[in-house]
Amino acid sequence: MKSLVDHLEASLESANRPLLCNSVIPTLVHCINLIAEELRSSHQVAAAGSSNAFGDEQLNVDVLAEKIIRDKIRNCSSIVTASSEEDPVENPAREASDHEADTGDERYTIAFDPLDGSSIIAPNWTVGTIIGIWDGVSALHGVPSEKQVAAILGVYGPRTTAIIAVRVPGAAPTCFEIGLGQEHEQLTTCEIVHPRINLLGPPFKTRYFAPANMRAAAEDEKYLQLVTHYIQNKYTLRYSGGLVPDIVHTLVKGHGIYISPVTDASKAKLRRLYELTPIALIMECVGAKAIDPVTGEDILARPIENCDERAGLVCGTAEEVSLVKQSLKLGLHG
Amino acid sequence: MKSLVDHLEASLESANRPLLCNSVIPTLVHCINLIAEELRSSHQVAAAGSSNAFGDEQLNVDVLAEKIIRDKIRNCSSIVTASSEEDPVENPAREASDHEADTGDERYTIAFDPLDGSSIIAPNWTVGTIIGIWDGVSALHGVPSEKQVAAILGVYGPRTTAIIAVRVPGAAPTCFEIGLGQEHEQLTTCEIVHPRINLLGPPFKTRYFAPANMRAAAEDEKYLQLVTHYIQNKYTLRYSGGLVPDIVHTLVKGHGIYISPVTDASKAKLRRLYELTPIALIMECVGAKAIDPVTGEDILARPIENCDERAGLVCGTAEEVSLVKQSLKLGLHG
Repeated sequence: MKSLVDHLEASLESANRPLLCNSVIPTLVHCINLIAEELRSSHQVAAAGSSNAFGDEQLNVDVLAEKIIRDKIRNCSSIVTASSEEDPVENPAREASDHEADTGDERYTIAFDPLDGSSIIAPNWTVGTIIGIWDGVSALHGVPSEKQVAAILGVYGPRTTAIIAVRVPGAAPTCFEIGLGQEHEQLTTCEIVHPRINLLGPPFKTRYFAPANMRAAAEDEKYLQLVTHYIQNKYTLRYSGGLVPDIVHTLVKGHGIYISPVTDASKAKLRRLYELTPIALIMECVGAKAIDPVTGEDILARPIENCDERAGLVCGTAEEVSLVKQSLKLGLHG
Repeated sequence: MKSLVDHLEASLESANRPLLCNSVIPTLVHCINLIAEELRSSHQVAAAGSSNAFGDEQLNVDVLAEKIIRDKIRNCSSIVTASSEEDPVENPAREASDHEADTGDERYTIAFDPLDGSSIIAPNWTVGTIIGIWDGVSALHGVPSEKQVAAILGVYGPRTTAIIAVRVPGAAPTCFEIGLGQEHEQLTTCEIVHPRINLLGPPFKTRYFAPANMRAAAEDEKYLQLVTHYIQNKYTLRYSGGLVPDIVHTLVKGHGIYISPVTDASKAKLRRLYELTPIALIMECVGAKAIDPVTGEDILARPIENCDERAGLVCGTAEEVSLVKQSLKLGLHG
């Protein structure tokens, strides 16, 4: 983990965030590696075939990932509050007696989706973990663009990788990719694979689109026209149905547009706290945009009032998001 | 590997194929586990960002996978001939002097794509290996439905899994899924995750579609109409762009249609020997269909005359393939 801490400290030198650099983020990255190890041998919990049998068994892997994170953050005194998609209530991260630990000015709340992509675990497609890190003792009620200071995506594929974005006062926003090695005596080896991620500007060699919830296009002529626009303009389709791999594809390829619309028949289903705000922070740190498909406003502009709020998502390069906004006529009723 | 050999021997009891069961297939499955291990630590070779830098570096992982398979099959005397997408010429699998080994009636040719899905390695999406196993000293000139006796898909995702299909005279065709464990002292642990894969019949809870090469729909009104049909009938989109994960999704979910059409502007690009025939055998073993999108004929009906022949692909449940055939008006000029 030394390379990770070194990289974070160098990136955030001008901000005073020692515990974020050498405790909070390394602890959560360690969790990602532990979850990866568990998944690797979880053939039976992921066994599927009929979606009925699958639904129940799936839960086990989610719970396992949840437990790994809850256990590890107990030893990270600057994480004071936690909530997750599995247990969406903000609670102290550990017993009250530990609360007195001296963490200086640094106190953080984490909000996480321990294992996103349950529908594609059975066919052994890449899945992920989503974590948002917030200043203070709660992620609620404040403006996310100010209160959320970091986000992590754990990516479980042929390798184990993670995307880390940090935006704190006093330092330039940054987003980078790391590659994790296998555990040896509880140590995670980590290398910086991609020290600075930024989405590319035009001209684009390949343009990618990821149309989530495409069934909604059956009810929304504008969405169907937008999808047809991508086809006719020869965008390349990449849509796994896993939010983490779909977003990471855009980050690694340097281009992409992800659209999860909301229609009358097809309700908002992405969690603002556990999915949307961490992804939106990452998007903004790489020079991209993440907006609400109903109001057209930035995902990070509006406070979250309760842990279970849901919405849709449009994110990707600024010009692609702008095209979606025009095509779907977003923000006109916002 | 004992569970794998036991399962194969039980499934093929009535056929006389001891070496296929206890040597050929286990050797190739061992290769899949070794490739998985290499991929897991290959962060730098898979590093990307610009597709230019990526193109060159990518080659390294392909070559690594190729080398693992070539090395291991030297010790499997009943594999007498091999060719691959990396080296598409049929050659003896080892030095001529070894050719005299007594393998009884069992002599096999393998044809493999060591690492399929190069475009999605950088974002850490699931990729795979494709292997066809053919009776005799060559995969060429014979009718594939008779000469190809087994196929294996190695799946590198959060876990390492493999799909194995076998169709030999004297035994019922079979297709099953295994989960692989980590290497311990050169031993691969293996469990049978899904002993019998069959695509489901109607009614379908969820119907999936994977429209490959969707840019072709910009030039082919029939393909665009077909894609629109899936959207309007609320099929679920799952398209990773990796042939192995896309096919495995259909197998594990029990439903799916995969379409890689060929148009004037968008030439056939899938290799018949290294990609199409193994996948077609798997499809037929699970009660599904795999046809050529130009002629409408079964992929396995026409002999392969040279290693580099290419074509498109339509495969999935029989009724979905039939719908594609009608929609694209296949076979009318065949």
